Amino acid sequence: MKKVLSLAIAAALVAPVAAMADATLYGKAHFAVVNTDIDDGNPATDDQDVWSTDSVFSRFGIKGSEDLGGGLTAVYQFEFQVNPDAGSTLNNRNQFIGLAGGFGTFLAGRHDTPMKMSQGKFDVFPDQNYTGVKGGDIAGLIPGDDRVGNVLAYVSPSMGGLTFVGAAVAGEQPGLDLTGIADHYSIAGMYSNGPIYAALAYNGYDLGTAVDASPKEIRGTFVWMGNGWQAGVMYNSFDPDITGLDNSDAIGVSGSFNFTPNDKIKAQYVMADAPVLRIGDLIAGFNPNITLSATVPSVDTDTDQMTVGYEHSFSKRTSAYASYSAYEEDFTGGMSSDVMMFGLVHNF
Amino acid sequence: MKKVLSLAIAAALVAPVAAMADATLYGKAHFAVVNTDIDDGNPATDDQDVWSTDSVFSRFGIKGSEDLGGGLTAVYQFEFQVNPDAGSTLNNRNQFIGLAGGFGTFLAGRHDTPMKMSQGKFDVFPDQNYTGVKGGDIAGLIPGDDRVGNVLAYVSPSMGGLTFVGAAVAGEQPGLDLTGIADHYSIAGMYSNGPIYAALAYNGYDLGTAVDASPKEIRGTFVWMGNGWQAGVMYNSFDPDITGLDNSDAIGVSGSFNFTPNDKIKAQYVMADAPVLRIGDLIAGFNPNITLSATVPSVDTDTDQMTVGYEHSFSKRTSAYASYSAYEEDFTGGMSSDVMMFGLVHNF
Amino acid sequence: MKKVLSLAIAAALVAPVAAMADATLYGKAHFAVVNTDIDDGNPATDDQDVWSTDSVFSRFGIKGSEDLGGGLTAVYQFEFQVNPDAGSTLNNRNQFIGLAGGFGTFLAGRHDTPMKMSQGKFDVFPDQNYTGVKGGDIAGLIPGDDRVGNVLAYVSPSMGGLTFVGAAVAGEQPGLDLTGIADHYSIAGMYSNGPIYAALAYNGYDLGTAVDASPKEIRGTFVWMGNGWQAGVMYNSFDPDITGLDNSDAIGVSGSFNFTPNDKIKAQYVMADAPVLRIGDLIAGFNPNITLSATVPSVDTDTDQMTVGYEHSFSKRTSAYASYSAYEEDFTGGMSSDVMMFGLVHNF
Repeated sequence: MKKVLSLAIAAALVAPVAAMADATLYGKAHFAVVNTDIDDGNPATDDQDVWSTDSVFSRFGIKGSEDLGGGLTAVYQFEFQVNPDAGSTLNNRNQFIGLAGGFGTFLAGRHDTPMKMSQGKFDVFPDQNYTGVKGGDIAGLIPGDDRVGNVLAYVSPSMGGLTFVGAAVAGEQPGLDLTGIADHYSIAGMYSNGPIYAALAYNGYDLGTAVDASPKEIRGTFVWMGNGWQAGVMYNSFDPDITGLDNSDAIGVSGSFNFTPNDKIKAQYVMADAPVLRIGDLIAGFNPNITLSATVPSVDTDTDQMTVGYEHSFSKRTSAYASYSAYEEDFTGGMSSDVMMFGLVHNF
Repeated sequence: MKKVLSLAIAAALVAPVAAMADATLYGKAHFAVVNTDIDDGNPATDDQDVWSTDSVFSRFGIKGSEDLGGGLTAVYQFEFQVNPDAGSTLNNRNQFIGLAGGFGTFLAGRHDTPMKMSQGKFDVFPDQNYTGVKGGDIAGLIPGDDRVGNVLAYVSPSMGGLTFVGAAVAGEQPGLDLTGIADHYSIAGMYSNGPIYAALAYNGYDLGTAVDASPKEIRGTFVWMGNGWQAGVMYNSFDPDITGLDNSDAIGVSGSFNFTPNDKIKAQYVMADAPVLRIGDLIAGFNPNITLSATVPSVDTDTDQMTVGYEHSFSKRTSAYASYSAYEEDFTGGMSSDVMMFGLVHNF
Repeated sequence: MKKVLSLAIAAALVAPVAAMADATLYGKAHFAVVNTDIDDGNPATDDQDVWSTDSVFSRFGIKGSEDLGGGLTAVYQFEFQVNPDAGSTLNNRNQFIGLAGGFGTFLAGRHDTPMKMSQGKFDVFPDQNYTGVKGGDIAGLIPGDDRVGNVLAYVSPSMGGLTFVGAAVAGEQPGLDLTGIADHYSIAGMYSNGPIYAALAYNGYDLGTAVDASPKEIRGTFVWMGNGWQAGVMYNSFDPDITGLDNSDAIGVSGSFNFTPNDKIKAQYVMADAPVLRIGDLIAGFNPNITLSATVPSVDTDTDQMTVGYEHSFSKRTSAYASYSAYEEDFTGGMSSDVMMFGLVHNF
């Protein structure tokens, strides 16, 4: 009877074959009360003090690994961004399968670029930048914080503190003659040892027949961590390689100081030659799976952002913060904004 | 070797930081075989006996909490509606982060309004109302069963059985001059003590410059629970505060009786001055995140719904039911429908 | 105090009632590096060697069961396809609730048809067919690999190795006069005993007033499994029952051989009278929830596909493979493609 029953259920649940569940469910709940004051000359939004309660890249994911023996491990991860403000939809974050061993880790799927990974803990206002809200994250001003599909990546083992990461990104756009497995690529070397974190990253893009150009990006990051404080500097240079468009450089400094074990003040300043765009916005019809970011000043433009904040840790997993960020595009037609955020964050 | 390996994997899985997983996966599978007979004068749907197998707000969610010490607890929840009939998409349900303590609970995110929460267990046909199917849930006739984004909510501790809940809802529509943190609000007092449940709730809306009006809604709910039975009454009044639109009142009665510990009969009757609309349908361009419901009769209109049902509990978590609901809009151009549902529900 | 606190939290987390969590999180991560060479006469895609890194129906799901006593069990499952290449969206896979007992299992929801279930392990390149990539799965050439909503299904207990499965699919399209609970249906008998697997399946469709026709499909599958090898044959016949459209027959053979316990070579050949279409493509406005597949040659057309592959198992749950598939539509205007896939698969 028992066997008959389980056979019937097994038939009903036919799809998932081997299924020994050791998947880990994890995520981050991050919501903030936000006040945004935009100065953009648009009557609908100009100079209005707008309050909202936003999810700031809240997310959940499933991940796990299996020891395959012989020093090999299979790893996988499916991570999703939750959008409580909207009625529906999840957004895809890092989602991949990988094989890890003494040689490092090979991954295939959707993933942050090594350029993005190279920032380490430089950004002391992570995630605080999203549609309509320039709240402090460097992605508001420095291109290269990209997550793309079609990724084949390699992460080296740590060699005396030095890790190398490389990602090949297939263009998958035959109409533009982008058919290779590494039409775009991103590489980074990251060194972590005691109080020092240093990284150098390089992106190379091929725009195929859309534009006869090979944009390049290079970024250096240095963070010095002490007992209860950190200080960082980042330099980023983007070369659009397109006639009539100038190079765009950005520089950022960041720091934080714990005045008690659970209380921290933070500050970050970034200045760049131009605001951040998407290559997909620049080139109509460019594969949206490969929405790399860029800064492409056509004239001499300046943009900067100053952010200060206070953060209280309730525990290792839960914290609250208040921050203020002033963003300004210092050219004709540019916008500026003042953003205050009062956030609560829980990692699970 | 082990360490090299784990470093490589750690680098690969860089995103989720602290991640100590104690998240709870929960949900409800609720499917029904449904027969709908609509009388609406539309040749495509009029007077047809349509069978379907529907998911009735089936859902899953992730939730958890962390004891922060000092009487404080962090809570979070991401809940999603599953739509098996469609090829894709999830819908967002309650999704928030919160801090709880002796003072009560503060929440930020997307949540049922206190107005909706105030119904308690009055509705004996919960969820049985969705696109095309008026199956018995009071939301088919009484406005105010809303879940909205941009919510800041407070839930008081129980004070001798009395709980207070308030939610501020930011309008976030600067083009309509809705920029405050509490453009809309919903408050409720709920009293639960022995056999008595009583609640009073109030909604206030601001429509900004869209319409010079401040719609209001008030609802009272009373449920008396005995040994194996319950009886309830609800009164709801919606004032659109718009010239030419009348107030709309609704009254509902509900009851259930267990004739065995696992078998129950249920009945519910609701009558209202007008069918339920959405403020978003009423006012073009109104923020879809704030899709509050309303009833706005422009002439003397009457609508009522009578539902009867039988429910069998297999266990505390699993039940089956059969129900019949007759819905009628008693005015020129109104529709009526007869809906039979044969459902199976499992909470996990 | 403790009680006050938990009451406050309970009120905040009001929705999920009984919620005793024993849900199982499971899934499959399947990614492949793919080379596609299409010959279709379209200048944008013709004769280009396109590389990409694709997710091949990667998925996760939640499932569980509850022993209801008296030999009854409640089962449920929500399964989703992950789409890492796209920025967002999940696709719905099998999602249902069911009751199982000595009598078998009854299910309601979205599910593979019994026609699809009847293939057993015949297909040695499962999942390897998706938009733009004809990688080997029989669904690229044989209609009937369908998953639909509005399903009421029954799975019999195994009777000496014989299992019967039947599914009624409501058409839910009153405009086409499809209002019954079994407008479409799919039935299958599957016999599994020692080295023998044999199955016979039948689909009947009603196209309502869209087309005065009742398409039918019949499929026989036979697989012989030995010690480290298997060989299978499948015959499928689709009768569109529409004047001017011929019957379409397909035949397939498949085999695999383990030359070590963890290494396997595989081959599969399918030939059909016509390529696979969707009834939804054939009949404008047909309910997309019931996207049954079909093959409907209007003239004498021939299509075939040959696939060979090698698969290495790292463990019961993790494997890697390489495959090559040549697909050809042998008629004027037909396309052909060569697809190489290098995949990594992990079940969790």
